[in-house]
Amino acid sequence: MQTTMMKQRAPAVAGKQANVLPRIAPKVARSRCAIVAQAAPAAAKVAAPAISRDLVDKCINAIRFLAVDAINKSKSGHPGMPMGCAPMGYVLWNEVMKYNPKNPSWFNRDRFVLSAGHGSMFQYSMLHLTGYEDVSLDQVKSFRQWGSKTPGHPENFLTSGVEVTTGPLGQGICNAVGLAVAEAHMAARFNKPDCKPIVDHNTYCILGDGCMMEGISNEACSLAGHWGLGKLIALYDDNKISIDGHTDISFTEDVAKRYEALGWHVIHVINGNTDVDGLRAAIAQAKAVKDKPTLIKVSTLIGFGSPNKADTHDVHGAPLGAEETAATRKNLGWDHPEFEVPQDVYDVFRSAIQRGAAEEAEWKAACAEYAAKYPKEWAEFQALTSGELPANWESALPVFKPEDKQLATRQHSQTMLNALAPVLPGLVGGSADLAPSNLTLMKISGDFQKGSYAERNIRFGVREHAMGAICNGIALHKSGLIPYCATFFIFTDYMRNAMRMSALSEAGVVYVMTHDSIGLGEDGPTHQPIEQLASFRAMPNMLMMRPAGGNETAGAYKVAVANRKRPTTIALSRQNMPNLPNTSIEGVAKGAYTIKEVEGTPDVILMGTGSELQFAWDAAAALEKEGKKVRVVSFPCWELFEEQSAEYKESVLPAAVTARVSVEAATSFGWARYLGLKGKHVGIDDFGASAPAPVLYEKFGITTAHVIEAAKQVMAA
Amino acid sequence: MQTTMMKQRAPAVAGKQANVLPRIAPKVARSRCAIVAQAAPAAAKVAAPAISRDLVDKCINAIRFLAVDAINKSKSGHPGMPMGCAPMGYVLWNEVMKYNPKNPSWFNRDRFVLSAGHGSMFQYSMLHLTGYEDVSLDQVKSFRQWGSKTPGHPENFLTSGVEVTTGPLGQGICNAVGLAVAEAHMAARFNKPDCKPIVDHNTYCILGDGCMMEGISNEACSLAGHWGLGKLIALYDDNKISIDGHTDISFTEDVAKRYEALGWHVIHVINGNTDVDGLRAAIAQAKAVKDKPTLIKVSTLIGFGSPNKADTHDVHGAPLGAEETAATRKNLGWDHPEFEVPQDVYDVFRSAIQRGAAEEAEWKAACAEYAAKYPKEWAEFQALTSGELPANWESALPVFKPEDKQLATRQHSQTMLNALAPVLPGLVGGSADLAPSNLTLMKISGDFQKGSYAERNIRFGVREHAMGAICNGIALHKSGLIPYCATFFIFTDYMRNAMRMSALSEAGVVYVMTHDSIGLGEDGPTHQPIEQLASFRAMPNMLMMRPAGGNETAGAYKVAVANRKRPTTIALSRQNMPNLPNTSIEGVAKGAYTIKEVEGTPDVILMGTGSELQFAWDAAAALEKEGKKVRVVSFPCWELFEEQSAEYKESVLPAAVTARVSVEAATSFGWARYLGLKGKHVGIDDFGASAPAPVLYEKFGITTAHVIEAAKQVMAA
Repeated sequence: MQTTMMKQRAPAVAGKQANVLPRIAPKVARSRCAIVAQAAPAAAKVAAPAISRDLVDKCINAIRFLAVDAINKSKSGHPGMPMGCAPMGYVLWNEVMKYNPKNPSWFNRDRFVLSAGHGSMFQYSMLHLTGYEDVSLDQVKSFRQWGSKTPGHPENFLTSGVEVTTGPLGQGICNAVGLAVAEAHMAARFNKPDCKPIVDHNTYCILGDGCMMEGISNEACSLAGHWGLGKLIALYDDNKISIDGHTDISFTEDVAKRYEALGWHVIHVINGNTDVDGLRAAIAQAKAVKDKPTLIKVSTLIGFGSPNKADTHDVHGAPLGAEETAATRKNLGWDHPEFEVPQDVYDVFRSAIQRGAAEEAEWKAACAEYAAKYPKEWAEFQALTSGELPANWESALPVFKPEDKQLATRQHSQTMLNALAPVLPGLVGGSADLAPSNLTLMKISGDFQKGSYAERNIRFGVREHAMGAICNGIALHKSGLIPYCATFFIFTDYMRNAMRMSALSEAGVVYVMTHDSIGLGEDGPTHQPIEQLASFRAMPNMLMMRPAGGNETAGAYKVAVANRKRPTTIALSRQNMPNLPNTSIEGVAKGAYTIKEVEGTPDVILMGTGSELQFAWDAAAALEKEGKKVRVVSFPCWELFEEQSAEYKESVLPAAVTARVSVEAATSFGWARYLGLKGKHVGIDDFGASAPAPVLYEKFGITTAHVIEAAKQVMAA
Repeated sequence: MQTTMMKQRAPAVAGKQANVLPRIAPKVARSRCAIVAQAAPAAAKVAAPAISRDLVDKCINAIRFLAVDAINKSKSGHPGMPMGCAPMGYVLWNEVMKYNPKNPSWFNRDRFVLSAGHGSMFQYSMLHLTGYEDVSLDQVKSFRQWGSKTPGHPENFLTSGVEVTTGPLGQGICNAVGLAVAEAHMAARFNKPDCKPIVDHNTYCILGDGCMMEGISNEACSLAGHWGLGKLIALYDDNKISIDGHTDISFTEDVAKRYEALGWHVIHVINGNTDVDGLRAAIAQAKAVKDKPTLIKVSTLIGFGSPNKADTHDVHGAPLGAEETAATRKNLGWDHPEFEVPQDVYDVFRSAIQRGAAEEAEWKAACAEYAAKYPKEWAEFQALTSGELPANWESALPVFKPEDKQLATRQHSQTMLNALAPVLPGLVGGSADLAPSNLTLMKISGDFQKGSYAERNIRFGVREHAMGAICNGIALHKSGLIPYCATFFIFTDYMRNAMRMSALSEAGVVYVMTHDSIGLGEDGPTHQPIEQLASFRAMPNMLMMRPAGGNETAGAYKVAVANRKRPTTIALSRQNMPNLPNTSIEGVAKGAYTIKEVEGTPDVILMGTGSELQFAWDAAAALEKEGKKVRVVSFPCWELFEEQSAEYKESVLPAAVTARVSVEAATSFGWARYLGLKGKHVGIDDFGASAPAPVLYEKFGITTAHVIEAAKQVMAA
């Protein structure tokens, strides 16, 4: 057992507040968590704080009151978390973390993730106090207002200093695992034994009871333990309050023991409200353990300092209000007016600017030394971390002719991944335990594992949701890595929120989703996507691709790789399909394009995607024999088509031609946008069934014959 | 520590197969799990098996070869799991479980869930061998074929004897928790100390490594531990193989310790391949522990008996093939041809028919005694378990007038739940730690907790995905319970697959989803649904409701409660809205209906839902002042509208009127079905933002003025 309890220090140290708050302090002892050992001597040296305990407390209270005041002003927000976690903020930002407020994107900075994202004012307090330009006092005063850089939950795309977007509980800790994966990978690839490391930082995360209850966090933390990510340090704000009240109404498991079972090093700080030395020692001990991630369980009182609301859910998600704020000011001895930060507090926190500049300078010197000794590797490092794609990378994508062998697009996807792996050194990824089905292994690489972090194939296990969120973390590490991840398309339902977070937080993850329709056959309706294409076409900022054949699969990868701020989901077939004439990489880039043209105005337009495009093609040939003029449009990506000019769209789908048919082994939902009120969809609006794929296509009426029939109906209408 | 190791018995007992299989048997010892104590004496008496060990082995091999043969014949399927788990099947079905093959829906039967659903042939073997009519030998031979009752994964709606649909990994164990919740609740409500219990059964579940890795299982099992569901017994098929290979590439946590941390009683059977006595003792010990659920970790070899494929992923998801099947027959001493079940094996397993009839008769006698002593309670029990809704239950739903106070529909939802709670004794449910926001507490009841299972409010904690799957289990217990569950609408993204399983498996769960648009305001884009309405409208068999005002909220509940085989999702506002004239319960039942009519043909039709319907209403009034003829259509449920007659649909949306506008604070995706190519949607196709709700509506252009403008544009087009 490795749980270590960080003992509360003697009253002389923690005393002042303990005396001020006799009513609240005793409750700290109520932790039910296993306490196995007394505090071990800190294994790493903690720099002695250069400032008095009084000033430390003042700094901590400054964090609290910026949050309290901002939330009061906006009349909305979550003060409880910042008030309870303020001591962690003080220790992390003033004594532990390495960062440069004047260069928030300095590559080798420590990463911090607020998984308990509702406590966003905690993070804004820290960013303001330490001197990040994006979070001025005016921005703090604009908390949760239109156009501010201080939104209700931290958004990486709005605020420098915020690494990832953490609204939905549980995502943040998984992003943190992804950030730590990226660091471990880059460090293993580039650091040299005879040089100072050029990739060397910790990833810190604060998560709460809500994050702990979410299954996604267990998935990611199981992987973090498996991988032995020693530079990941998570602080668990164990305040035992959630929205419904005390956590004992639904959450009585032994979290510390669970994390030990997951392979983590676990430490318990029993008084996170005032025991600053305990926090210091715990973090030092966490840093000293190199082969396991560390969970520091920090028992706190939510809303610490509020005489009437601390330790209640009232302080979780509502402003303290004027009266209770006054009482809290009195209770904590804070005699500054709203939004006032004393100069000595600024002096302490803003020392980070000088410290950060020095740390960045030191890193640059290490880089210079590295560049001199290892010019080739340094060039590679620079090229990769620039975020620019290598010149001509796309020429690695193969081109297919109609006479080429019929293959499943999942097989083409395998071809693309393996064509791109050598030319895109940032490509890393894997599958949620379906590598032999998704065909996602890069043959030039081994597995990313403890001891082989430099390898590029990642084994996620059966953990789709965490897989997506970890890939978001890898993408947002911004070291030029291009994460892809894979499962059966249907299981996007397990990871949908992580995919939405890719779209929102501008993480260019590539989602490789095979077995994309009833064409998967015998596994039956639980495995057969019906509404998934529509559900992603409806999602903002997600590119939903369904390529037909080799050229379109190449085109899908070209778009996916090029879009570094927008995720792409590629739906791929289990079954073979032809390489139809005129399908092309260039066509895919336009979202929809004509692959079979006619003289003059078409009598009917047949649209299709993926494995069903061939039915449109064959139906056109049959209808032409009957003298009909038929245009066939391949429609791999609706979003890209919508972004084309009005002229182009009209050229593909002329308004005058209202006889239109779409064919796709999926729901009709959404197709009316291109079909109008008159058109017909050949597809399936119910759940699938268990049978061989050809039988299913026949029974559900998704065949060339059905396309012909539908075309005749719409032409006659 | 409570982990107990069930020791392998002396060779004399497990001997025969151990001798036959020297190559494989030694691998059994490789378990890395903590083994803390030797086998404790079984706390409950195990009935001595009346048949010889040879016949036991023959029965076990019959299970294996039915699976092997069926999977070979269908050329698709997963033989590894049935071959490894066959001894569990034998012990459970022949010695442990209480069920009546001739009445698969006997109320007091033990429930069995195959969470590792890909191993479906395991379950079909058991159902066939024990005499369930749905699974004849012909059905076994039709495994995975169109129209069979033996689909690729178990589907409750196709096959009697299958309790729940378990394709996606992790769902089944959560359904099992739900079944155990239902049992505990019904037992606490109805059993009497002076009568034999009329509700008294165990819930068994077999789950594999895949289920264990999925976060959803951790969520549900944390709750099961919290609730102390002592009659839940899960057998973990610890075969250490998943699709990517050995689980040590991604799954090295200590599962047993994790389950102890979750509050479970944990037992380890180290040789699940042959140690039948160990399985017997473990299950007996599990049944003896009444206050905790039990996890029996059963270490097995996947594909046990296959000389060349056992213990490899090759046997997980592909037929053994002719050659390896022959080798396996030889190895296990099975000299019967394909699909032949020896009569002595049938004689053993089909004793279940007589046993089950006797058990059901015994239960009926207990019921008769109960009915005599407690006629009122018996009548209640009968009424509830009949599945019929009480007469006139819907008259409890209130009616609202336009002059009634403006409220949020989440407040109306609270009114409905509390109006229905007294008249629908089966209504049970709760929220994923958002009860004060979702407003889902039934005031007439307390909390379902350990010691108060008879109460009807369930506290799910921050565990959306498990919440949905647990509710599916409660619904499919078929005791007349009507489960509802709640979170913010956006977090349906966390529980989408469970909701899809409600729709597929005909579980009439009511999903109460509040904060249904950007109208939630300051929490920002991670909390603001955009594409969620579209995503559920696209899902088969899901009723997606978005009511406007009190009457429509009442109507949504009326539909939701009435639909016992179809789930309903009700999207509810955070913010207030008016009770518009002509909105009605009856209108909701038609999906869409006219709330403002005009003389003659309308110039324009304005459609809206929920909190935006008022903008359509106000725009109509403004346009009428300008002399326009405007129809306003309220559109609370697309699916119900699609089910109306063509005449009704034409009467609401006449084809001749192509000037149409829809307004909904959500994506335009899907609306083209009703707008045609010419119509316009007033909504939002991008992510939201953090600001007060009125600001967001203004900034994103979702106002009466924008509806008026859009109406003018479409009338002019």
